[in-house]
Amino acid sequence: MTETPRLHPTLQAVADAAGVHRSTASRALNPQTAHLVADDVAERIQAAARRLGYRRDAMAAGLRTKHSHLVGIAVPDMANLVFAPILCGIEDVLAKNGYSALIANTGSDVARQIDVVDQLIGRRVEGLILATVQQEDDPVLTRCLEARVPTVLVNRAEARHRAPAVISDDLNGMRIAVEHLIGLGHRRIGHLAGPQNLSTGVLRLQGFREAMERAGLDASAVMCASAYSREAGAVAGGALLDRFGDLTAVAAANDLLALGLYGALGERGLSCPADVSVVGHNDMPLVDMVSPPLTSVRIRHQEMGAEAARLLLEQMSGAASGITIRVTPPELIVRGSTGRRAARSRKAPAK
Amino acid sequence: MTETPRLHPTLQAVADAAGVHRSTASRALNPQTAHLVADDVAERIQAAARRLGYRRDAMAAGLRTKHSHLVGIAVPDMANLVFAPILCGIEDVLAKNGYSALIANTGSDVARQIDVVDQLIGRRVEGLILATVQQEDDPVLTRCLEARVPTVLVNRAEARHRAPAVISDDLNGMRIAVEHLIGLGHRRIGHLAGPQNLSTGVLRLQGFREAMERAGLDASAVMCASAYSREAGAVAGGALLDRFGDLTAVAAANDLLALGLYGALGERGLSCPADVSVVGHNDMPLVDMVSPPLTSVRIRHQEMGAEAARLLLEQMSGAASGITIRVTPPELIVRGSTGRRAARSRKAPAK
Repeated sequence: MTETPRLHPTLQAVADAAGVHRSTASRALNPQTAHLVADDVAERIQAAARRLGYRRDAMAAGLRTKHSHLVGIAVPDMANLVFAPILCGIEDVLAKNGYSALIANTGSDVARQIDVVDQLIGRRVEGLILATVQQEDDPVLTRCLEARVPTVLVNRAEARHRAPAVISDDLNGMRIAVEHLIGLGHRRIGHLAGPQNLSTGVLRLQGFREAMERAGLDASAVMCASAYSREAGAVAGGALLDRFGDLTAVAAANDLLALGLYGALGERGLSCPADVSVVGHNDMPLVDMVSPPLTSVRIRHQEMGAEAARLLLEQMSGAASGITIRVTPPELIVRGSTGRRAARSRKAPAK
Repeated sequence: MTETPRLHPTLQAVADAAGVHRSTASRALNPQTAHLVADDVAERIQAAARRLGYRRDAMAAGLRTKHSHLVGIAVPDMANLVFAPILCGIEDVLAKNGYSALIANTGSDVARQIDVVDQLIGRRVEGLILATVQQEDDPVLTRCLEARVPTVLVNRAEARHRAPAVISDDLNGMRIAVEHLIGLGHRRIGHLAGPQNLSTGVLRLQGFREAMERAGLDASAVMCASAYSREAGAVAGGALLDRFGDLTAVAAANDLLALGLYGALGERGLSCPADVSVVGHNDMPLVDMVSPPLTSVRIRHQEMGAEAARLLLEQMSGAASGITIRVTPPELIVRGSTGRRAARSRKAPAK
């Protein structure tokens, strides 16, 4: 039998070519239902589809079945290196389950974030993953919940648990960083904190305070950065060093802040770790190669993304009951930026 | 007038509330056509839509008008740091033009890449951007062309110009890196080359050869890495150093390869730049903070992404005639990893 491939062959044409009913052909060509058709029949149908150049129109199929097989992902800054592995983990799990990711870059402006999420909902996404939320009653999440779209948070969570979330154990991550410094003999330890409207910023500050107080140490040497960036870290880190002249160690809420602090130390003629030990947070790519290599708290971002996708698929299937908050364990990676406190501590600079 | 918001108010309800015809309401609520409606009328309609909680269903609208307003993007490895700014640039331009990005992570296996692109086409994407293509007759691009979906290549191009592309000037980028080394007095210069099935690998090797031959120098000290990774750079970089014991400088095809070479130098008791100067390629984030800070050829990845999206929109609108290849100029960023050739060159290691 010779068949001339058409530009857009119909499902009926494939069914005819394979000698089956149209509905059987439809089932065999849909990855979600192919297992319902006997293997040899499915293979015959798929071979006919290939021969004819048939292409299943997932969008039209989605409209008929009310399933778009799309998931929306809102990221505050796609160029930030921590989001790449999170997206990678999400996309991998979604693809294996027949879903595609609509990824939108929202920036940090809430009105724009709502606008972007509205557009994703308008495209009938079956679920949403937000990497954007603020610590207190995030208005974007409120919009998602009102629209009744299954939503999972990743990396950042709300203080109230209105939606499932996958986060690292920010409190404990900062505790192990501080305990590492205390173990090296440091007593005057500062915290270069993250933005306090984000859960990572709040929880890591809290972890710092708890660890210091548990050890009977003064936890007041804190400076908050305005953003998670090297520039903001240099500014707040410089202010921290100037305000608390006797610090011998600093635990930063994020690797970029720690790298900004490196610059502030250099400008003040101080060296790391001889004068001041520094711990980062995230263990992002290449921090093992900076000078000195950065001791950091490793967060498994790709696994967090994968887990968020799995939680969302559970929500979308209706199998989930209640709200799950998955907390991934952090791990301290010790490198050259932390060392034993020098016998003679650095003195407060002249005012 | 009081109106009770419904869960899913219709377009007709919005039109009625605003006292206009349904088609006027439709035009006013579509970002692409809102300018066709008088400002005050459009505002009245949009206010009614907000009041009623009307949400435009972009997917159903897309199916009616045959426009999905979706663009598919195929990336070989979303976790690779060079792709984050490219995606950021693409997404920004698409969003401003009412398009959403379906981003798919394809890996480097061609069969899987074709499968992923088929799925994107099945979702009726109006165009595709491929960051995946191989140097010679890429089968994924062949599939896109057969399906008559407008396609633009980014970062990597084919040797034959079958589709518009936005690439950096790889040939010239490597030339300026080599000329910088020659200017510092180096004569025995090696090339740590990228994979030779990718245009970046081929063109940068060609740029190395041309620059060396133009200066009357021997261009035979070349070792190809199996992938763009630090691990592959350490292996091929070590082999390059062992095979050509008298090199005083190496131009690497990529920053990760250069950082792998740093490790290979350290293992051999050699220091950079005192014994061997190193130039990278891409100027990726944080290479200014590694030790020593890496001299590198800067490529404007975010601009490349934005330009690829603009080219694709042109293709999709039918306004483009012929094939445009946009080549962005590279720029050398000089840092601490390159220095003047020492008075006494390093000797070949004992065999």
